[in-house]
Amino acid sequence: MTEPRRRGRPVELDIARVSEVALDLFLEHGYDTVTMDDVARASGHSRRTVFRHFPTKSSLVWASADGFVDALRDHLAAVDPQLPAMDAVREAYVRASAVPEEHWELTRRRLRLIGDNPALLADGVERFHGVDGIIARAVVDRAGVAHDSLVAAVVGGAVVLCAHNAAVWWARHGEGQPGEAIDAALRRLSAGFAAA
Amino acid sequence: MTEPRRRGRPVELDIARVSEVALDLFLEHGYDTVTMDDVARASGHSRRTVFRHFPTKSSLVWASADGFVDALRDHLAAVDPQLPAMDAVREAYVRASAVPEEHWELTRRRLRLIGDNPALLADGVERFHGVDGIIARAVVDRAGVAHDSLVAAVVGGAVVLCAHNAAVWWARHGEGQPGEAIDAALRRLSAGFAAA
Repeated sequence: MTEPRRRGRPVELDIARVSEVALDLFLEHGYDTVTMDDVARASGHSRRTVFRHFPTKSSLVWASADGFVDALRDHLAAVDPQLPAMDAVREAYVRASAVPEEHWELTRRRLRLIGDNPALLADGVERFHGVDGIIARAVVDRAGVAHDSLVAAVVGGAVVLCAHNAAVWWARHGEGQPGEAIDAALRRLSAGFAAA
Repeated sequence: MTEPRRRGRPVELDIARVSEVALDLFLEHGYDTVTMDDVARASGHSRRTVFRHFPTKSSLVWASADGFVDALRDHLAAVDPQLPAMDAVREAYVRASAVPEEHWELTRRRLRLIGDNPALLADGVERFHGVDGIIARAVVDRAGVAHDSLVAAVVGGAVVLCAHNAAVWWARHGEGQPGEAIDAALRRLSAGFAAA
């Protein structure tokens, strides 16, 4: 677990393992009290190495979401072009959010931490900011809505936040696949909350 | 504009004026480049006085939203108890968001700044976190939805973000009252985005 000093060659680091070690610490001691030094010590890396891969504490929690934007874009491009806009968005979003079953427990713990710490959600909103635009564009393209319309301005954020909060709900209460909760929330957004 | 030193008595500060001075600086030079020192200098206060009222840069932008949570709670309590849940939420939200016409231009500029800076939106999400729960509770109480249901977990965030993004849309494109855009966005959330 120690790092011999090597000139000019950055130390390799197992991103998934370090973020898991950090998650354990955050859940046990509280997100606010754990420092990057604690994470470095517990993972057996130098502070510098950890900072090189995780510039902020919240990036230790959000690292696993890094491929999401690209995955969503790919799935949106692949969805049946005949599907109504919101169905296409829902299908692509659920596919892009898919987590292999062996990672469900880890995902639950991560989502509970985010759900309990508004500062982490806030950081996620900043990280996922580009997703709004991708969804808005899909709705504009598929439904013929004007790109500067009110609907285009609000639909992306609504999808992202509904899907995120559905995932947190799954982590706290849900059985089965996380994708089912996201699917149900986006169906509701599509059909409207009036019947709530 | 200078502050004579007075022992034991905090210097009075015009919250609205200082946040307006800050907004001017942010819009002219960019939110990231302006410092609290710049704001202190331009408003004629000491750095310490400004920090006492505005602990962060983003609080200079969000200060005007401080009364929103209480206003929303009051308006929700006052709305016709016979109204369907989402109509009640919409009416209360539009009333709580009302801005007197003489402040529309200032509000537009503030919302444009927030719209252009995801970090400011992220901070708003953290500040407005309690609003989610207030809306969820209104929907639970009025529509008889279970408090731990998926709908209760997602509806609050969807309302807040739709309303916020509608307000930003109004600041960029809209004519007339900001409340009209918020009203239209929440009607859409209520009726569903499927028809988008």
